[in-house]
Amino acid sequence: MVASMRTIAPMALILALAAASTATLAQAPDAKPAPSPGEIVAAAPGGDWVDIAPDELLVMTLAPDAKGKPRRVVIQLMAAPLSQGWVGNIRMLAKARWWDGTAVYRVQDNYVSQWGDAEGDDPAKAKTLPEGLRTVPESDYLTKVAPGAFDALPKTVDPYARGNGFVQGWPVAMNEAGTVWPTHCYGMVGVARDLSPNTGTGSELYAVIGHAPRHLDRNIALVGRVIEGMEHLSSLPRGPGALGFYDKIEDRTPIRTVRLASELPNAERPRLQYLATQSESFERYAEARTNRRDPFFIVPAGGADLCNVPVPIRTKP
Amino acid sequence: MVASMRTIAPMALILALAAASTATLAQAPDAKPAPSPGEIVAAAPGGDWVDIAPDELLVMTLAPDAKGKPRRVVIQLMAAPLSQGWVGNIRMLAKARWWDGTAVYRVQDNYVSQWGDAEGDDPAKAKTLPEGLRTVPESDYLTKVAPGAFDALPKTVDPYARGNGFVQGWPVAMNEAGTVWPTHCYGMVGVARDLSPNTGTGSELYAVIGHAPRHLDRNIALVGRVIEGMEHLSSLPRGPGALGFYDKIEDRTPIRTVRLASELPNAERPRLQYLATQSESFERYAEARTNRRDPFFIVPAGGADLCNVPVPIRTKP
Repeated sequence: MVASMRTIAPMALILALAAASTATLAQAPDAKPAPSPGEIVAAAPGGDWVDIAPDELLVMTLAPDAKGKPRRVVIQLMAAPLSQGWVGNIRMLAKARWWDGTAVYRVQDNYVSQWGDAEGDDPAKAKTLPEGLRTVPESDYLTKVAPGAFDALPKTVDPYARGNGFVQGWPVAMNEAGTVWPTHCYGMVGVARDLSPNTGTGSELYAVIGHAPRHLDRNIALVGRVIEGMEHLSSLPRGPGALGFYDKIEDRTPIRTVRLASELPNAERPRLQYLATQSESFERYAEARTNRRDPFFIVPAGGADLCNVPVPIRTKP
Repeated sequence: MVASMRTIAPMALILALAAASTATLAQAPDAKPAPSPGEIVAAAPGGDWVDIAPDELLVMTLAPDAKGKPRRVVIQLMAAPLSQGWVGNIRMLAKARWWDGTAVYRVQDNYVSQWGDAEGDDPAKAKTLPEGLRTVPESDYLTKVAPGAFDALPKTVDPYARGNGFVQGWPVAMNEAGTVWPTHCYGMVGVARDLSPNTGTGSELYAVIGHAPRHLDRNIALVGRVIEGMEHLSSLPRGPGALGFYDKIEDRTPIRTVRLASELPNAERPRLQYLATQSESFERYAEARTNRRDPFFIVPAGGADLCNVPVPIRTKP
């Protein structure tokens, strides 16, 4: 009896069963298990997927890892009308090849990995920024959207806002109808800044690698999310000390290049899509994340945290 | 102007300012900045801290890392009355030295690191479990507590429950007064299981290394949390494939020993304390996490997610 308990994983089963033919479960035809979120996404029709334009993709190539394996991180930049001042600066920095030769210089557990000019604090050593970067006001942490542009996440409450949902595939929160802000979910990319009223240029960026630090919402600009290669930022050694800055230069992870996909040769461009958050498939996926009824689960939750309903991404088939 | 924006980090400043004397900020005496959560914790009186008993600490020693650095992970086991069936099994497994020579065999990004017997699925290779492990019923995912034992987190809502808060220093959620369940926050440790009604023995364990997968609450047993050395589980290379199992044995992280601190020589026992969740210091800390007013912040959130109010831990001074 105890021996039969030794089989491996909780999560293993969630997806193992999803992959298995339901016939192997020896159930009556009317007792077909409820589809898992992954199964719903896999069955979504092609028309529910949205291509991500090459100028909305930032491709960051880190130095290979200790075993010589290449490390590529792909970041989707926020679509208009969200955060476009900073996103404009990021495009300008990428076109200037400004990040080439910079580094990931800070990794703080359950918080952020941060990159850019590690010597930026020292005026004698700081890398010169390109001309023409925009200064973005704090008011741009909030964005006005047309009422129909916001898709509410049903059956949820949000400790950080009156409501939440999605705008053009991005997780946002809302206090008044029409005014939204992007949320610090896992993998989201933001702009490091100095004390207010400084809002940062976009040269120093971080990715969230732990539980969503939602108290940063409306306090720092979010500009995108990691949609491929997240593990190359989340599995880096943590820096010593409370803030995770590396104390030795050799511990930093060198950044070889950062390019907009639109500046890469056609063959090297990532071809990625996100599941439209207005689609029926997304609605079913969000409902299944809210109430898991696939065979592993006993008690459906009855609600879901916005950051626990990540927008599905896939390689274009 | 742009040059002045180049200073490093958002998070750097949060704690850098916390550490700095307020005198350096050149403010009027009545404009002293509001204390940060970290400052409130640092100022908590000794009486607000609770010693963690040696038989509630599990010390897991992993093989040293690639640079030869030791890796020790300390797990606090749940206090009565939460999850005591499984916790009893875990103490029995540790006393039998059952985990010595096992491994971390699965690391899935934004989800879990999992350890135990990687060959447990194969009856011909599985490690024999000690006699006397308890079979715990699913009803034990919920725990009855006396009304006064539950400290609600104020100013919050929870998408997964009607209320939430803490019991004896552990984050819990609640639907009916008196019935609580522990929550899958970052660093929490749970018991891998097979399909229901199997609830697992405790031999296969996982730690949450990403955004809280709260949909697992009431579906899998939680038995503790990592309170030291979390980075040794969260920064491991992710396994290939959707579930993060390693496909090569050499990629697993060997576990040298797992011991209750009560079985270690006195000098090797971790001396750790948690901040009492009933204390006034904790109340002020939770309020400061809910409404950040320290100088970096512009907009206080007005609420906080239970998993974004981690219970402070310190080495006993």
